This record gives sequence, C-alpha cells and structure tokens, in this order.
Amino acid sequence: MINIAIVGYGNVARGVHKALKNNPDMKLAAVFSRRPEAVRKEIGSIPVIRTDKDAPNQSVPIDVAILCGGSKDDVPVQGPLFARRYSTVDSFDTHAAIPDYFRRMDTVARESGNVSIISAGWDPGIFSLERVLGDAFLPSGKGYTFWGVGVSQGHSDAARTVEGVIDARSYTHPMESAMEQVRDGKTPEFTSRQKHRRVVYVVAEEGADKEKIRKAITGMPNYFSDYDTEVNFISREQMAKEHNTYPHGGFVMTSGTTDKKNKQIIEYRCQLTSNPEFTGSVLVACARAAFRLKNAGHKGAYTMLDIPPALYSPHLGETLRSKYT
Amino acid sequence: MINIAIVGYGNVARGVHKALKNNPDMKLAAVFSRRPEAVRKEIGSIPVIRTDKDAPNQSVPIDVAILCGGSKDDVPVQGPLFARRYSTVDSFDTHAAIPDYFRRMDTVARESGNVSIISAGWDPGIFSLERVLGDAFLPSGKGYTFWGVGVSQGHSDAARTVEGVIDARSYTHPMESAMEQVRDGKTPEFTSRQKHRRVVYVVAEEGADKEKIRKAITGMPNYFSDYDTEVNFISREQMAKEHNTYPHGGFVMTSGTTDKKNKQIIEYRCQLTSNPEFTGSVLVACARAAFRLKNAGHKGAYTMLDIPPALYSPHLGETLRSKYT
Repeated sequence: MINIAIVGYGNVARGVHKALKNNPDMKLAAVFSRRPEAVRKEIGSIPVIRTDKDAPNQSVPIDVAILCGGSKDDVPVQGPLFARRYSTVDSFDTHAAIPDYFRRMDTVARESGNVSIISAGWDPGIFSLERVLGDAFLPSGKGYTFWGVGVSQGHSDAARTVEGVIDARSYTHPMESAMEQVRDGKTPEFTSRQKHRRVVYVVAEEGADKEKIRKAITGMPNYFSDYDTEVNFISREQMAKEHNTYPHGGFVMTSGTTDKKNKQIIEYRCQLTSNPEFTGSVLVACARAAFRLKNAGHKGAYTMLDIPPALYSPHLGETLRSKYT
Repeated sequence: MINIAIVGYGNVARGVHKALKNNPDMKLAAVFSRRPEAVRKEIGSIPVIRTDKDAPNQSVPIDVAILCGGSKDDVPVQGPLFARRYSTVDSFDTHAAIPDYFRRMDTVARESGNVSIISAGWDPGIFSLERVLGDAFLPSGKGYTFWGVGVSQGHSDAARTVEGVIDARSYTHPMESAMEQVRDGKTPEFTSRQKHRRVVYVVAEEGADKEKIRKAITGMPNYFSDYDTEVNFISREQMAKEHNTYPHGGFVMTSGTTDKKNKQIIEYRCQLTSNPEFTGSVLVACARAAFRLKNAGHKGAYTMLDIPPALYSPHLGETLRSKYT
C-alpha cells in the first residue's frame, strides 16, 4: 500500500482524491492545507495538517506527496520543502521555468534520497512525452500541439479584469483547418491566429457598455489580440448552468516523411470532460512510479520523459508483456 | 557515433537503412544476410557478412544489431545468437510468444552484458506503450486497438493460396462506426466483424471461376470468415500500379470515466504511407536507447514499456526540458 499525501486541496486535489479510489494499491494518508478546518469538513476522517514551513515534520506515514497548489506561488516553495522529507509529484506548468525548477528539485531530492517527478499531468506531462516520441521516431518531421476545446483559466481570469465584467469564461478552440493540413502531411508554420481561436462568455454588469467590453477583451495583448476572439454576453444563470465544468483537451501531431516522399503522421489526442480529474489521475499514476523508483534505489528529479512507462501501471511486467504488448 | 548492424536485408531493413540517414549520431557498420552477393550489389561499400552461426564472431565494430528478419523463423534463432555478442533490437511480433521470447533473450543478454530491446516498432511497440499508458491513466476505462487502413501481409498471403489466384493484396479497414462509439465515451464489447472489415484485390488466372474464388476467400476461417470481406478482381497492371506501397496505421483508444460521470477519451493514431520505413525509424530510435542503457551499466531484455522515453531522443535532457516539456 502506497501512502499518499495531498498538498493543497483545490480542484486538481479533488481529482487526485477521486483517482485514488480507482487505484487500490494506494491510499490517502493525509492532506496538507492552509485552511485545514474547511478541508476537514469536506473530506471527513483523513488527517488534515496545516501547511507551514514545519508541515512536513510530522508523524503520519507518507510515501509520496502530490503537490496540487498553483505553479506561480505554491509549487516553487512547496516542492523543495516537501522533497526534503518525501518523494513528490507535481504539475508545475510554467513552461519557461521548468529547467530551473528541475535543477532545484534535483538538488534537494538527491540530498534527501527522494524521487521528485515534476511537471506531470497532460501538458506538460503526457503531451511532453508524445512530442519527444514524435520527434525521435520521425526526426525529419515537425511537431504541432493544438489545445481545446477547453476552458483556459488564465484567459478567463484575464477577461474578468475588464471593467464592467462580473464573470467570464474563455474557451480555446483548435483550428480544424490547421489540423487538417498537418493530417494531410503538410508541415507549415502557423501563426497563433491560424492555430487557435477563443470564445469568451461574459456576464456584464447591468447597463455596462457591451461593445466597449468586447473591444477591451478582443484587444487585450498577450491574451486575446493575437487570436480571432468571439465574445458572447450571457446571464448569471446561463453561466452557472452551462459553464460549470472544466473540459479540456488537445492534440500532439507529428508530420514527417521517411525517404523524402512517404508521409508518416502520428496524432495523440485527449478529450477530457474534467481536466482536473484527468490531471489528478495522471498524478496518481506518477506517484506509483515515484514510489517504485525510490524503492529501486533511485533519487533526484524526473520528468515523465525519464520514467519507464511500465512503472505507471498497476500490473506486473509479466502481465503487461502477455496482455498489453 | 553508434555503430549499427542490420541483420536480414528485406523491406524493414531498407527502412532502417534509410532512417539511419536521418539520425547523424548513428551509422551503418555492417549488414548480415543469407544472400550477401545480392545485398552487396544493392548497398555498395558497406561490409556484408553471410549470416550463419558464426556470423557474430567477426571484427567489424558493432554496438547494436537490429534484427530485421521474420518473427516466425528468423528472429527466435538470431535473437539469442546476436545477443551473445551485441546489444540488439528486434520487432518480434508473435504476440502470444512474447513473454517466452523475453525470458530467453533476458537470460542471454544478462549473461553477455548486453541490452536487448524486443518487440519494438509500432504494434507491438508504440501501441503497446499507448495501451499501457491509457490503462494506467484511466484505470476504470477500457482500451481498444483498431488497425488500418493498411495492407495485411498475412491476409494477402492467405488469399494468394486460393486456387486460381495469381496475386492478392488484403487491406484492413477499421470500422468508423465502432471508433465513433468509443470516441463518444461508450465502452462496448465488439465482435471482430464490428471492429474491422477487409478489402481484397485479386488478380485471377484467365478463365478462373471468380465467384468460387470470392467464396473461398470470404469463407476462409481465421483470416476472413469473421469479417465482412469485399473481393475485387483487378488486372496485373492495376495490381502493379495501384498496390505497390505498404501503407498501414491504426488507433489505440482508451475510454473511461473519472468520478463515474466524467468521460475522458485518449486516442493515439498512426497514419503511415510506408509501414516498413516507419518501423525502421522506430527501431533506429530504439537502437539509440539500447546503446545508452548498456553504456549506463544496464543489461538484459527490455520492451518499449521499460525504456525512459528520453533515451530514444537525439537531444539532451536539458534541451528536452526546455523545448519539449
């Protein structure tokens, strides 16, 4: 039995908690939270420990801590803190900062003799894996990642900062026309606008100037101005009823040729009704891998690129070879 | 520079040879063949060595031998023979015999201190990997493999045994209706007929009874009787012109739910204009992994389930983390 701790109890953590029920070789041993009373009410009898700098120094037996906080402020602090005491898994997703975070976690985990799997989930994570496999198997090819249809939290938050906006939800849509070109064996360079479009649902304050809101959103640099963005105004009730889930998904495609003329196309696709629950499920499989790596004498930081896939599986090697190969 | 030997010079070997040109860290050092004169004519200045039981005992420097012979008679003999002297990669694809072949190769490779990657390619190989990942990330889900559109060599050979048939080519088509059900989040049990259909192109002897040939093919047990099979009669010229390539492809899908109701779908797809060239390209990436595993002190048999994906890549870990994660 692998004892799991969840650090930070938000949507991804709830996904991890649910996933543990589908993985009978693991159990939730403790939750770390900055608001332990609220979490205790939600989850019942499992020990809930207040997250502070002494948090890891307690006596509940824990094999792997799954860090479910945000990549901006939580994980960069909690990663090194928890890796001093336990093996860890996180979904650190600030792409540009991954090499630096890897080095920091590698240093701590080597010193403490733990295994820290960083940047796991579907992107970064599985999609990283599929980008590397596509490139290795078709070295003369070109890789593409498309996201959607799904909710972008960052873009929703950005739209919510516009004056007159009470609530907003931004969806990313991949451009079918671009995907069809790649599936057809072409290897074009796309602009942001050619790869994705955005659809934003907005609840506006009563009497707000909708045209002004629309322009403020569609013209917002970094977030919307590089895309064709559609803005739809809806009621609070519609927002609550029609936009209360967190779907997402995406595509990793590699298009290349062998021997100049023979087109070879690889496509990996996720279509997720609940992004946080799927992410949670991937993190749990990574926790199994972290536990096994440490038990086999390994230590240090890993990404999903560094892990033999069999280690994610609840099945033994012999079973995998006879039933899955 | 990794020195590669090719054992057996057929279509997959030609694919390996072409793939080596796209991978500048490797070079073809030697070819082993039972018909060295013919191969020498085809490939020029590279040493060609006659395959016999003393074949591996020669002086050309070789790091990894890629075994490109057939799974029925060649690889089961050549695998242990070459693993005594070199690290090896093969695409042994007799699914039911993989566990036993793995044990035999593991014993030899451990004794000789080499790394033997068995059953590599796209299926078994990448598809095995995707089946295991799908199962690990969605443990409450159900996995499906669909093949096609592509040429089935075994079914083509079977159709060719029918009296009155001069030449035949059998294509496997996946059933879109079944794939749509899986993409829709359903997890049905399919019969063979519901998953695939077959389309056979036949060149018949002049004056042959076409209706009799059609019935003999569509009623053939193990090969065609469990499928809806369409038989088309064509001329020698059409066969030579329209059916001279080896396309293939397929789909690995996992459909599952998290928290009972949230559907999560993963789909991996290959669409290959040249099956042997893509297989060759995968085997070459595996040779890189075998070389690195041995250099890191490992030995024994591996499948693609046991290999950290970064080892396939020509890029360093630091580059992978900054550009692919």
